[in-house]
Amino acid sequence: MAQQTPVAESLLYFYDRPKEPVFFPKGNNDVIFQIPEDYLSSRSKSIVNELPSRFERVKEEIQIRKIELPDLSEPMGLGKRENFSGFIPYHRKLAARVIEVLMGMRTTEDLRSAVAYCRENLNPLLFIYSLSVAMLHRPDTRNVNIPPLSETFPDKFIGGGLLNRAREEANIFQTDGTRVPLRLPLDYTASDVEEEHRVAYFREDLGINLHHWHWHLVYPFDGPDVVVRKDRRGELFYYMHEQIVARYNLERFCNKLGRVKRLQSLYEPIKEAYFPKLDSFVASRVWPPRNSNVTLSDVDREQEQLKFDIQDLERWRDRMFDAIHRGTVLQADGQEMQLTEAGGIDILGNMMEASTISVNQRYYGNLHNLGHVALALCHDPDNRHLETFGVMGDSATAMRDPVFYRWHAFVDDVFQEHKATLPPYTLQQLQFDNVNIAGFSVQTDGSKAANQLETTYDQNDVNLTRGMDFTPRGNVFARITHLNHKPFTYVINVNNKGTQRIGTVRIFMAPKFDERGITLLLRDQRLLFIELDRFTANLKSGNNTIQRKSTESSVTIPFEQTFRDLTTNRPTDSEGLSRFNYCGCGWPQHMLIPKGTPEGFPCELFVMISNFNDDEVDQAADAETCDDASSYCGIRNKKYPDKRAMGFPFDRPPRQGANTLADFRRNLPNMSVIDVKIRFTPPSNNPNIVD
Amino acid sequence: MAQQTPVAESLLYFYDRPKEPVFFPKGNNDVIFQIPEDYLSSRSKSIVNELPSRFERVKEEIQIRKIELPDLSEPMGLGKRENFSGFIPYHRKLAARVIEVLMGMRTTEDLRSAVAYCRENLNPLLFIYSLSVAMLHRPDTRNVNIPPLSETFPDKFIGGGLLNRAREEANIFQTDGTRVPLRLPLDYTASDVEEEHRVAYFREDLGINLHHWHWHLVYPFDGPDVVVRKDRRGELFYYMHEQIVARYNLERFCNKLGRVKRLQSLYEPIKEAYFPKLDSFVASRVWPPRNSNVTLSDVDREQEQLKFDIQDLERWRDRMFDAIHRGTVLQADGQEMQLTEAGGIDILGNMMEASTISVNQRYYGNLHNLGHVALALCHDPDNRHLETFGVMGDSATAMRDPVFYRWHAFVDDVFQEHKATLPPYTLQQLQFDNVNIAGFSVQTDGSKAANQLETTYDQNDVNLTRGMDFTPRGNVFARITHLNHKPFTYVINVNNKGTQRIGTVRIFMAPKFDERGITLLLRDQRLLFIELDRFTANLKSGNNTIQRKSTESSVTIPFEQTFRDLTTNRPTDSEGLSRFNYCGCGWPQHMLIPKGTPEGFPCELFVMISNFNDDEVDQAADAETCDDASSYCGIRNKKYPDKRAMGFPFDRPPRQGANTLADFRRNLPNMSVIDVKIRFTPPSNNPNIVD
Repeated sequence: MAQQTPVAESLLYFYDRPKEPVFFPKGNNDVIFQIPEDYLSSRSKSIVNELPSRFERVKEEIQIRKIELPDLSEPMGLGKRENFSGFIPYHRKLAARVIEVLMGMRTTEDLRSAVAYCRENLNPLLFIYSLSVAMLHRPDTRNVNIPPLSETFPDKFIGGGLLNRAREEANIFQTDGTRVPLRLPLDYTASDVEEEHRVAYFREDLGINLHHWHWHLVYPFDGPDVVVRKDRRGELFYYMHEQIVARYNLERFCNKLGRVKRLQSLYEPIKEAYFPKLDSFVASRVWPPRNSNVTLSDVDREQEQLKFDIQDLERWRDRMFDAIHRGTVLQADGQEMQLTEAGGIDILGNMMEASTISVNQRYYGNLHNLGHVALALCHDPDNRHLETFGVMGDSATAMRDPVFYRWHAFVDDVFQEHKATLPPYTLQQLQFDNVNIAGFSVQTDGSKAANQLETTYDQNDVNLTRGMDFTPRGNVFARITHLNHKPFTYVINVNNKGTQRIGTVRIFMAPKFDERGITLLLRDQRLLFIELDRFTANLKSGNNTIQRKSTESSVTIPFEQTFRDLTTNRPTDSEGLSRFNYCGCGWPQHMLIPKGTPEGFPCELFVMISNFNDDEVDQAADAETCDDASSYCGIRNKKYPDKRAMGFPFDRPPRQGANTLADFRRNLPNMSVIDVKIRFTPPSNNPNIVD
Repeated sequence: MAQQTPVAESLLYFYDRPKEPVFFPKGNNDVIFQIPEDYLSSRSKSIVNELPSRFERVKEEIQIRKIELPDLSEPMGLGKRENFSGFIPYHRKLAARVIEVLMGMRTTEDLRSAVAYCRENLNPLLFIYSLSVAMLHRPDTRNVNIPPLSETFPDKFIGGGLLNRAREEANIFQTDGTRVPLRLPLDYTASDVEEEHRVAYFREDLGINLHHWHWHLVYPFDGPDVVVRKDRRGELFYYMHEQIVARYNLERFCNKLGRVKRLQSLYEPIKEAYFPKLDSFVASRVWPPRNSNVTLSDVDREQEQLKFDIQDLERWRDRMFDAIHRGTVLQADGQEMQLTEAGGIDILGNMMEASTISVNQRYYGNLHNLGHVALALCHDPDNRHLETFGVMGDSATAMRDPVFYRWHAFVDDVFQEHKATLPPYTLQQLQFDNVNIAGFSVQTDGSKAANQLETTYDQNDVNLTRGMDFTPRGNVFARITHLNHKPFTYVINVNNKGTQRIGTVRIFMAPKFDERGITLLLRDQRLLFIELDRFTANLKSGNNTIQRKSTESSVTIPFEQTFRDLTTNRPTDSEGLSRFNYCGCGWPQHMLIPKGTPEGFPCELFVMISNFNDDEVDQAADAETCDDASSYCGIRNKKYPDKRAMGFPFDRPPRQGANTLADFRRNLPNMSVIDVKIRFTPPSNNPNIVD
């Protein structure tokens, strides 16, 4: 009992096996919480005293101090076995209440008492969500890294019956070294008879889904203002999802599929089916599938206090278009507000999402969220079959479903309607005088070919033990096959004819040809540009050579964040990785580059250096980090670090005459474009992969 | 180690927790099997030796003798986590091979060795099915009662997440007496918004589904001739399912629903959805639901070696109609065979089902089975989504689905087309000269009202522990709410004006009015008559009073067979119930009487006494029992005990002029009809029910 976990860090133990009682040992028999009797149900009380005889001696006992707690009866109204969705307004309100209570705790120890009470008495999904939002936002806990959701609820990420196999493995093989990693095949949700399955490796990627979940934790829909009202959150909502759609379209092109079709008509049958094959441990259910050719219906479900019509979605959409074409939105007080060139997109983003800072939710409604809900409930819109929602109803699972991209292609289309009302960027806005890019190339580590990006499938193991309630302890690994690329380096030669200055280097990539093999017009290509990096560079007078590694990307979080077992490795982190480098939100590094093709998928790699004087945001540079993936996630507790519109310079239709990318960069020597190929090595040529 | 379980009885231990390894302790640490090394996989071998340290000392060790086994590589081709269906020809062939091997074992001990090998190496569903068929049919094991499937695979019978709750309960509460029974609510698959849900208590009844599973065990589709070729099996296939449809229609009438609509057009959308909310432990999946308005598609799935078109089903149907209207069927050798008055229905039954004794499967196909399969796979007919089949694909679960009744209403309609070609029964065939029924009544025990049957909901507990793999031992009960009725007695006064004779008493019941409240014509009513009992009575000359209890019904098996925990109670069966009274197959006693209505559902109760000389079947009366439920199940290893057509006298359209039941019995004093009411007491008036 020598060890004493710091109070803030001890909160992590509440993430362990969320369906086991709070008073069961946590971790690998590391800790047991002594819970005040008043916090326990009568059945729990009846067995607490017999526990010492059932478990080996734990390393540490933590006394939970009893404090008086604010009323939590409302969130306790969500049954412990019900499903929970941040997209559902009623559930959001329950979570907002819990978040408010946890944010309001005076000391970390008080927080721990409140958390212990919540752990015993709340729905586990609601609990983990609310605790995570609170930990991310409280000054005393925000440097404690919460575990990836895939450790707490592996059932939301790893399907195909693997978790049942893992449970058997853990029960049958209990001696060290006798367990083997369980392979999760790449193709478990569908077969190649289904065209859409060709891009399942993207949709079902662990890191991508963790990113989406974490993004919505950083930007919750509801809660105290301090957690919801963030710099340019509406714009980031637009931009992050625009990039997801662009990235998805690139993957589609690589797999001989056309661009994803907007879910434009809400009354037409939806061709794409999806059978997620994921369990839901909490709801003791499976995530319901969606059959082919299902049509959306009006939703009226008492259980989740949901009642809206498909017509409502259309009405809100039309009102948003109305606001866009008028250039003003109607505020709740009846006043009009301009959709300005700089700020309009942020207003529209908040309105579309919609979060609590939407400008007039009564009028503009709740389009994006309730679209998710309508799609998630299309199999049982009036709850006659007592079914829970599908994967579209949970930010941790929604990106698995092909319809997610159809929905977000529609959402993005509304934003693009606004972008089309803005004046195109002028040469003046795009230039950086006296800065010429003299050379630009990209070099894959260890490769002879220039300007070739190289991808393949890799396998990595994820430890499931912390999410496997009521199973013998010890590591059980899922072996996951995922896309990856070899690290590479951008080399940019810059000739600065002026004095020493700072430039913002912006790197984007887009396909060169459309689905038909015809060169893309910039009008269309701009929507396919994916951001690869954005960083500042010191430009001394004269020639400069900028080298930038792919692993430094402002879009991604490190590979280790997805696949390293952070907690297990914590005490003996031999590689000197500081835990505090990881912030959770961010595109996974292994998915930075699209899959490509065996013959080499042709892309255009674009670089632009803009004047940092025009980009700089007024804020103190302090030690607060979590800026790993600022392009898609912002920086924690700070302003978005680039004053330009997100997606600049491709966020608006190009100026008159700039029909192609070549036209666009004409007379702009601070830009450069090169042809690159993405070459994919199939697993059959990769001896390390067994699938 | 004093105890030594007889070899045949020791086979029952192989039913225990079918996903745990064969070398894990069975029962409540009762037995451990010592398996020959050669029978084990290499991973199993690696841990067998460490087991003694993990489990408490067991009461008995059973050495499995190593014998040389026939080749089982083909059935081993079915993966251990795949689903298994007797309706799928490929799976049937695999099972037939295992059954053949097990039936062929020379001694019981050899059988045990083969079973141990199969338990370790075969798919658990295939294993349990094949073992059960073999045990039911081998002379050395047929008196050993196999446990109800609901104990071995509770996941096929008990849904709604209850088994996950049970697993938690067993893990958290490990001391005697701390566990509580877990309530399975009556309404967990749908809500009353769904009209079809009104009869879910029937479709999802534990006993009814066990009956259907057991019936198909007694009459397997494939296997050695000794298990398939049984007296009048084709006719019994027709009759048992005809009765199911009739019983379902009665329940529908009691719930203000019209008769079930035949699934006549195979290309129309199927309105009825079904979300079974059942897990599949073996396949680590949930049973897939069927959405509303799904249309059937051609099936082409490599995995189950299935390939047939909906057109094939239509073609086989049309050929059967063709045979019926010609009065002859085409045999495989090109010869014609008469559909005789007595034997035609048996030929058609085997043809329709279709079992291996179908007269010409190449020509008449596999209509009933593949209809089940097409319905079970309508969500993924080409396996593009890698989905397994729905509940319609398993005889243990099919009766839960509303579409089962639509399919069997169609199947029955084909049989009725044949029945309509037969000459109606003449007065001569129906009479029993000099036998007059002078009085007929029914009296519910403890009730003052005459001719009133009384129903309500009851609750009973089912012990789940034997099916809960990898869970701490000890009883875990599911508390199941089910329909029941008070026991009652028929009283029949018979005046025999002749000499002493034996009569066959036949008791049927049908609703008096149709969906619209209009008196039923016998033409329609005859299809709604449900058999309640059939027995022989000794009629002495003069007046006789026959009293017969509802619990003696020839249709049902005792209540205890469904709800008593036979195995646990075996050693201390204080109530003197012989285990050998239970044979598994049979309509559950608690479902003998339809639900009725609170105001009393009006029915006609019909009794007929026929001359046993015309009914008697030529066979020895020996000690072989299992005749509890001979009306729907036949008698084990014997001929069907009634020479008349099954369903007699209502199996054919009535004679000219007999428009009503009253017309029908005119001039037939050996028949009697009375009005009865079925009065249902709702749970709200029943203090014993908590739902």
